[in-house]
Amino acid sequence: MTSGPAPETIASIGEFALLERIRRVLESSPDRAYAPRTGSELLLGIGDDAAILRPEPGWDLVVTCDIQICGRHFDPRWMNARAIGRRAMTVNLSDIAAMGGEPRHAVVSLGLPSSMEVTEVEELYRGFLEAMEGTGAGVMGGNLARSGSDWFVDIAILGRVEQGRAITRAGARPGDRILITGSPGRSAAGLAVLLASTDVERFLAANLWAHSLVRAFVRPEARIAAGRRLSKAADRPVTALVDLSDGLVGDLGHVCGRSGVRARIDMTRLPHDPDLDAAALHFGRSRAAWTLGPGDDYELLLTVRPAAADRVAGELRAATGLMVTEIGEVLPPASEPLASGEERDMVEVTGMHPGDSPAFGWDHFRHLSPPAQG
Amino acid sequence: MTSGPAPETIASIGEFALLERIRRVLESSPDRAYAPRTGSELLLGIGDDAAILRPEPGWDLVVTCDIQICGRHFDPRWMNARAIGRRAMTVNLSDIAAMGGEPRHAVVSLGLPSSMEVTEVEELYRGFLEAMEGTGAGVMGGNLARSGSDWFVDIAILGRVEQGRAITRAGARPGDRILITGSPGRSAAGLAVLLASTDVERFLAANLWAHSLVRAFVRPEARIAAGRRLSKAADRPVTALVDLSDGLVGDLGHVCGRSGVRARIDMTRLPHDPDLDAAALHFGRSRAAWTLGPGDDYELLLTVRPAAADRVAGELRAATGLMVTEIGEVLPPASEPLASGEERDMVEVTGMHPGDSPAFGWDHFRHLSPPAQG
Repeated sequence: MTSGPAPETIASIGEFALLERIRRVLESSPDRAYAPRTGSELLLGIGDDAAILRPEPGWDLVVTCDIQICGRHFDPRWMNARAIGRRAMTVNLSDIAAMGGEPRHAVVSLGLPSSMEVTEVEELYRGFLEAMEGTGAGVMGGNLARSGSDWFVDIAILGRVEQGRAITRAGARPGDRILITGSPGRSAAGLAVLLASTDVERFLAANLWAHSLVRAFVRPEARIAAGRRLSKAADRPVTALVDLSDGLVGDLGHVCGRSGVRARIDMTRLPHDPDLDAAALHFGRSRAAWTLGPGDDYELLLTVRPAAADRVAGELRAATGLMVTEIGEVLPPASEPLASGEERDMVEVTGMHPGDSPAFGWDHFRHLSPPAQG
Repeated sequence: MTSGPAPETIASIGEFALLERIRRVLESSPDRAYAPRTGSELLLGIGDDAAILRPEPGWDLVVTCDIQICGRHFDPRWMNARAIGRRAMTVNLSDIAAMGGEPRHAVVSLGLPSSMEVTEVEELYRGFLEAMEGTGAGVMGGNLARSGSDWFVDIAILGRVEQGRAITRAGARPGDRILITGSPGRSAAGLAVLLASTDVERFLAANLWAHSLVRAFVRPEARIAAGRRLSKAADRPVTALVDLSDGLVGDLGHVCGRSGVRARIDMTRLPHDPDLDAAALHFGRSRAAWTLGPGDDYELLLTVRPAAADRVAGELRAATGLMVTEIGEVLPPASEPLASGEERDMVEVTGMHPGDSPAFGWDHFRHLSPPAQG
């Protein structure tokens, strides 16, 4: 082994030089540079106390934020810095997609250990840019601080949607059809593969079905084009929209809670997914736990007026190339309040196989690492 | 000792119940509730994939974010949860003030250990609300995740300012006068007291001068009213504005860097501050290190056209009750590039006492805890 010069770390170059390096990465990306772009509402980006935007008339703004913590939402053993950055940005883009919005400008807060190599920080930013590629979004500002070993990325993002066109979780009505893009559960099954493997490369080489599942977890995609199409539809057939970041039952439960309805999912209607079936067989588990339970699929779930359901599904498929499947329907509210008051209990699941584990919700305090500790 | 029931923790009640508790704290605050307010641009607050805003015409938006990490930016030995929350929000409000803006809507990301007591989380939120009291700002959304022991608060905030009226760091011109509110260095001296004391209560009881210094660190105030007054002044006498979050030399250096100028501070003009003098005497240190160096004063520094300096200072004093002091002037750029290229080297300090330590900049990777480690 040769011993080259020690790699540059945040501590060795300092914050001032690090900010310059980040600036250079952002500048290298012409269509999403931090500098004001012609025709953009961004008047001032990185480098002042705050960024300045001049919103264009006729648009509403949609704003959200999402944290990704090392060891909880990602694990550097499975993902390089670029993939971590791409995923952290995608999670935020997905929330904008779930309002039918187009993402515009992000502020990025990083809590990083000072031992982190500078090239890793640059790769994180390249990951942010990769996720935003082609969306028109950019990084308008941010903040750096020193963390311990459980470093984190926290992104807040502004998007926009034509006035009055945002699709919330609150509009589902009894009789509406429930549609999903993609095949929920793939990300959770991919995580199961990663958690179970001491040698992921070797496992993937021996189990080809696992590739697409691991990819679903490591490299999710935000369904921005699908969300935009739904919010722009002239006759407003979509009554509620949510992204699957908490799992199918959890997120459909959110829609039920906000809309004051219940819902039924028919398991027999869920898309056939041979990779998920292979994973279920391999782990001796029911596919339903992954499909219904906690997961990070970042697919969209929509409720649609019944007469428009087939048309919306067909048009969405044709426009985006995504699989779109009707999986159930919206039900009237329960005549008596639910015992637990939890949203997930508003979702009823039919067509389960005997032995399938029941649906469960998502809890951001229980993920990746072992259950709550002191 | 009696042993009561174990206190509720995040782990014991779960995320669902925790969100309800947070919602109740926010609802208890009529003038800054998360729910849409009459005449407000907030159409939808907490509870969906994203919040929805309809910006009022005639305003620009100003957007910023700031992280506060336990053990780096605050220490629970010195501050209770409410004070930590108040300070974290104030740091963000101050960035809006430094653009001349009015704060409007925050999204709050919390990375918290699951062992944290629920009452602590509620107190954090009460602290956020306390900081926003009377500003018209509210919490429009957020995000929770489980952290390790170095838990954190990351806030992104949107403010607004009349179109074209934001005051950046970039407009300072040679000859402009440099004004500050308050007395920089108080916060850094307060931190020195906290770091040096094994028994803070006892120290404060014996050293009355230390009270106001510790308060400056623990409970800073954002100069929102001052910033608003400056951005609204009809003749636009203020050419650059920044808040003192990185210290006097560091932040004035940012103004110089963005404006392409240098600046001179005259130490003999800085406000007389008996508490700072007492602290310098007690620690056997020069006051200049605190006044010029890294600090969290959250006072404002402004550069003003020379003919307007006295009037601006007088009006600002009268309108806000703050001390306002002219401390130096803006100089032409150096004829040759600076050796280090660092902004702080663009600031020249005169009137130092012999033995005063030189000015130094701020580095977010060097604060509270010991220097960079592996």
